[in-house]
Amino acid sequence: MKKKEIVDRAGWLARLNRKEKMLYAMYSSVTDCIVTDPAVMVVPVDDHMVHRGDGVFESFKCLNGNIYNLRAHLERLQHSCAAIEIPCKHALEEIEQVVIQTVRAGNQPNALVRLLISRGCGTMGVNPYDCADPEWYVVVYELPEHDTPTLPEGATLGISKIAVKPGIFATVKTCNYLPNILMKKEAIDLGLDFTVSIDEKRNIAEGAVENIGIVTRGHELVMPPPDRVLAGTTAQRTMILAEKLIETRALVNVEYRPVTMGMLRAAVEIHMYGTTTNITPVISLDGVPVGDGKVGPVATALFELLKEDMVPDSSRLTKVF
Amino acid sequence: MKKKEIVDRAGWLARLNRKEKMLYAMYSSVTDCIVTDPAVMVVPVDDHMVHRGDGVFESFKCLNGNIYNLRAHLERLQHSCAAIEIPCKHALEEIEQVVIQTVRAGNQPNALVRLLISRGCGTMGVNPYDCADPEWYVVVYELPEHDTPTLPEGATLGISKIAVKPGIFATVKTCNYLPNILMKKEAIDLGLDFTVSIDEKRNIAEGAVENIGIVTRGHELVMPPPDRVLAGTTAQRTMILAEKLIETRALVNVEYRPVTMGMLRAAVEIHMYGTTTNITPVISLDGVPVGDGKVGPVATALFELLKEDMVPDSSRLTKVF
Repeated sequence: MKKKEIVDRAGWLARLNRKEKMLYAMYSSVTDCIVTDPAVMVVPVDDHMVHRGDGVFESFKCLNGNIYNLRAHLERLQHSCAAIEIPCKHALEEIEQVVIQTVRAGNQPNALVRLLISRGCGTMGVNPYDCADPEWYVVVYELPEHDTPTLPEGATLGISKIAVKPGIFATVKTCNYLPNILMKKEAIDLGLDFTVSIDEKRNIAEGAVENIGIVTRGHELVMPPPDRVLAGTTAQRTMILAEKLIETRALVNVEYRPVTMGMLRAAVEIHMYGTTTNITPVISLDGVPVGDGKVGPVATALFELLKEDMVPDSSRLTKVF
Repeated sequence: MKKKEIVDRAGWLARLNRKEKMLYAMYSSVTDCIVTDPAVMVVPVDDHMVHRGDGVFESFKCLNGNIYNLRAHLERLQHSCAAIEIPCKHALEEIEQVVIQTVRAGNQPNALVRLLISRGCGTMGVNPYDCADPEWYVVVYELPEHDTPTLPEGATLGISKIAVKPGIFATVKTCNYLPNILMKKEAIDLGLDFTVSIDEKRNIAEGAVENIGIVTRGHELVMPPPDRVLAGTTAQRTMILAEKLIETRALVNVEYRPVTMGMLRAAVEIHMYGTTTNITPVISLDGVPVGDGKVGPVATALFELLKEDMVPDSSRLTKVF
């Protein structure tokens, strides 16, 4: 093995040749500036987020030049910081402004945005009191979808074998995402689109990075309460929009309550909700058709409501471009 | 708020002014070189370890120019990679050589070493298959102890309220360390040196970053089996060395078996084991003296055995300087 070279700052910079196009822009509080060169989209190794996952985050999207549901994400981020006691001193308005500036610097009207708040740079240890101040990062990157949201084809679902997160770790959006990663891997390895985890009471919990909801034979839309799963912004927004389907009699009730395995298997529709894909109808559970095995009318109606929620004159959009 | 500046690579470099002395050297597979300037000890933001905690790690120390127990750490790292299916293709010998080179570049005979293997740089998502190749990092940093190991003063312990990690997440040393961080914080907030977690069967699990062991009234050294806690290298080494105390009749038995809360409260000695502090005797549990409230003879004897294990002619040392 060739001996590794010891280089200085300039030598290190010369070795950076990352040309990934999918990262558009990044703001880092460490240097307090925005960069568009992926090579320097980096985080100090002694930031406790890097070596311990000691941070919280939000993912949201910019669609046709407008960020969707930004306030809901910023408020959840604030809640996440409070839950694990990261003392973020920045006002939501300031963070919002920097998010907008960074998206603008990325120069892409359709993009995903990751906002991360870390415990900060400290020692390489676990002690949170060793960290000077929280750091925060905004990363703007490729949105794999088109600029017009589409209802995905019917997806396949299985039951996960990955242990569900305990206590507050399930309800707070932290950078400890290994269970979610292993669920994603499990689904791919099984040839499925999604798996859903089961909590210690044998109730349905959530997908790798999606919430789950079902439509019962009695025309109820039921979602697991956000006391054992992450309160997804798309799922929560869907629950509010779904009230409109009671008016049109497509649904008789919309409710957060525990979903048992039996309820899941008896559902006429199963939906997965997430920031990137909005709503995905599930047409097969463990290889057995869900309902009539086709995309259901409630999924279609909810998708239309979500799409309307993202049009340029919606109050839930923050204009960037 | 002043608008954030958008800078190029050179502008970004000019803004780096981190002068921390506690980081001595770092190797990164991303640039495949060693740096000693803390400003460029950084990790790409799209490395899944950074934004999801998708990585594994080891911490070990270089004492008087020799790394202690390196092989045990490298083997556990290999086991950790296998457990969460990070396909690290590097031979242990290669990693070992780079560790030695990086410690040498740090130019400090007494230092801590962090070895991290990440899923790699990919998208900003959770899909492990989006990552090109695992990346790995070696960080050499300040050892807060002196070059001669010392037996710490008697420490205080309480029972943790933080939920214990489920399934494999408890037994694999991953970068999902938020429960550990919150335990450390809990101990500090309570004015204690350590707290110890309790598993779902109400058995004793482990400290924030330490294993726990007890000496019973019947002169047994008992440690929770490594099926529900991390198999600490210091704890495991201690269990092997403790066999010598059976010969001297200081102990009658050395065994891994579940430790109940009752056993903990009835213990005549309680020990915490870890890489940095070796063995720390606990003299107070929830404010109640442990045994006679003084550092016990088994702790003292085990400390001497551990110290002998670290002398320059020990087979468990890897020479660096």
